[in-house]
Amino acid sequence: MADSFTLDIFRGTPEGALAVETSTHTLGHGEIYIETTHSGLCGTDLHYLARGGIIGHEGVGVVRQLGPGVTEVKVGDRVGFGYTHKVCGTCDCCLSGRDQYCPNRLDFNRNHDKMGTISSGVIWSANMVFPIPDGYDSADAAPLLCAGSTVFTVLTGPDVKSTDRIGIMGIGGLGHLAIKLAAAMGHEVVVLSTSESKRQEALEYGATEFHVYDSEKPAPEGFKPLNHLLLCGNTGSKNFNNLVQLLAINGTVYPLTVSKEHAPVDLVGLIGLGASIKGSLTASRRTIVDLLRFASRHGIKPTIVKFPMTQDGVQDAIDTLKEGKMRYRGVLVR
Amino acid sequence: MADSFTLDIFRGTPEGALAVETSTHTLGHGEIYIETTHSGLCGTDLHYLARGGIIGHEGVGVVRQLGPGVTEVKVGDRVGFGYTHKVCGTCDCCLSGRDQYCPNRLDFNRNHDKMGTISSGVIWSANMVFPIPDGYDSADAAPLLCAGSTVFTVLTGPDVKSTDRIGIMGIGGLGHLAIKLAAAMGHEVVVLSTSESKRQEALEYGATEFHVYDSEKPAPEGFKPLNHLLLCGNTGSKNFNNLVQLLAINGTVYPLTVSKEHAPVDLVGLIGLGASIKGSLTASRRTIVDLLRFASRHGIKPTIVKFPMTQDGVQDAIDTLKEGKMRYRGVLVR
Repeated sequence: MADSFTLDIFRGTPEGALAVETSTHTLGHGEIYIETTHSGLCGTDLHYLARGGIIGHEGVGVVRQLGPGVTEVKVGDRVGFGYTHKVCGTCDCCLSGRDQYCPNRLDFNRNHDKMGTISSGVIWSANMVFPIPDGYDSADAAPLLCAGSTVFTVLTGPDVKSTDRIGIMGIGGLGHLAIKLAAAMGHEVVVLSTSESKRQEALEYGATEFHVYDSEKPAPEGFKPLNHLLLCGNTGSKNFNNLVQLLAINGTVYPLTVSKEHAPVDLVGLIGLGASIKGSLTASRRTIVDLLRFASRHGIKPTIVKFPMTQDGVQDAIDTLKEGKMRYRGVLVR
Repeated sequence: MADSFTLDIFRGTPEGALAVETSTHTLGHGEIYIETTHSGLCGTDLHYLARGGIIGHEGVGVVRQLGPGVTEVKVGDRVGFGYTHKVCGTCDCCLSGRDQYCPNRLDFNRNHDKMGTISSGVIWSANMVFPIPDGYDSADAAPLLCAGSTVFTVLTGPDVKSTDRIGIMGIGGLGHLAIKLAAAMGHEVVVLSTSESKRQEALEYGATEFHVYDSEKPAPEGFKPLNHLLLCGNTGSKNFNNLVQLLAINGTVYPLTVSKEHAPVDLVGLIGLGASIKGSLTASRRTIVDLLRFASRHGIKPTIVKFPMTQDGVQDAIDTLKEGKMRYRGVLVR
């Protein structure tokens, strides 16, 4: 008879309040039981919470039991786990290392609406976890799984070179990691923020320039154009035509956070510069593995605030994030 | 005493009517006199005409005299010449083969408002002309210099592979050449047109699929997504959010014609597909040279309508283009 696991999973109620759901599961073929130890809290979780979904997709924990057929990990391994996708491994996307776009990922995932990383533990696909490098703290690893890997996907793109000027607009969960990572990759790191108060930290994180700027304005005087501009804060309210004017020839703007607004884009502005607006989803498995190694090798850590993974602690983290006061990523610790 | 050259140049009057301007010029350092024999007529010329500018940027002619210091060509050479840019050769763009974006190109061009390719001849920078391959007809070469090279720039981009599905929307001066070129490069060539009447020609030109489609509709039933979508007709009126939904993962839409409208873009749609909207300007010098060789080697010719390069002939060509009846590129012949 199969072992059963009773899991406490934090999620939203139909009214959008925080609740704990307790459910019992068994291990299927290729699945593992992970005891959750840490989870980041991402802006996207607020959307999930509001519509009654599970929360948390930046998890770290310890493998406690293996289901049938698991060869990828062993009991006791410290692993990262995030989105609940199990990917098919055979579609065009999977075969070309872009498995985050696997069109079959939900069909393969029998628990995608039940498993969040803000939880006592989860049943997870063994091929969708990531080894945490020895000596790299689990609390630091958690924010790399979404915030870090989203910006790392852009920074490791085929048309990004270390000689490029990288613009980072918005210093929060994504932006502060983008600064640290881009600096370690040898870039000129040009930070654009609406708030002078973040100048000192941005420079400490590795920024080579800091400009107080919002997209309703023209480029700062004497501004040297950017090869890549990562929009790490709210994208919906941005004036994309002014943003494009910050770019060098063949430069690219990457909106990285989800926004429902439709941005009016001046096509002549794009053509004149040979510029692009490029969507980018969270990372492939390969990119997450690469990031964990890269961050560990360079000693790059997110700047985090820890909260206990209790009802009060999770609520406190949510409130801090909603108020825009998280500096710069909340991590829940069991 | 320097030789002087009396040139007849077609251009718009302040009221936007067609006129001939006669002016006299001498050869400066690095300049040549070209006797014009052929010129394409491009949609962009209608904009220039309307605001009183010179017209024609798809010229072919014969070098008749060299100014001081010219080593690039010799008298009697058959050359293509287009935009009046002379490029600096030392900026980041010039050094990286993207000289069409040279920021100094106008500063270097003392005649940019006087020389058009619909003319008896021009004074031109010797480093801004292109050798026409032996045996390749001058009338066929002309439309390659703007229409052809604009689409060839996209098709020879670093992220385009012969295994990709290329969408071509709008069959006109650009679109019909895009079909022929993409077919010769081994692509699946998917033509999207609002008019069933162009199906037969599109297939003859090398299309592998033809769909009657306009961007206000969802994708045709069973439509297999595109890696690249070249917008070769009017871009301003397009619904970009529907166009993005025609794309495969990491696909790109390229608006290739000038339009003043600002297109509303759904950023979530871009992110979900990892898709891009990418501006692309007319070609670099290198791309034009490559295209002339490629077209000659494969025997690819534009489908042209010839008009005499006289006041009546030019007016006739302009009217045909304005009425949307050019099949598919007008070429003026002296």
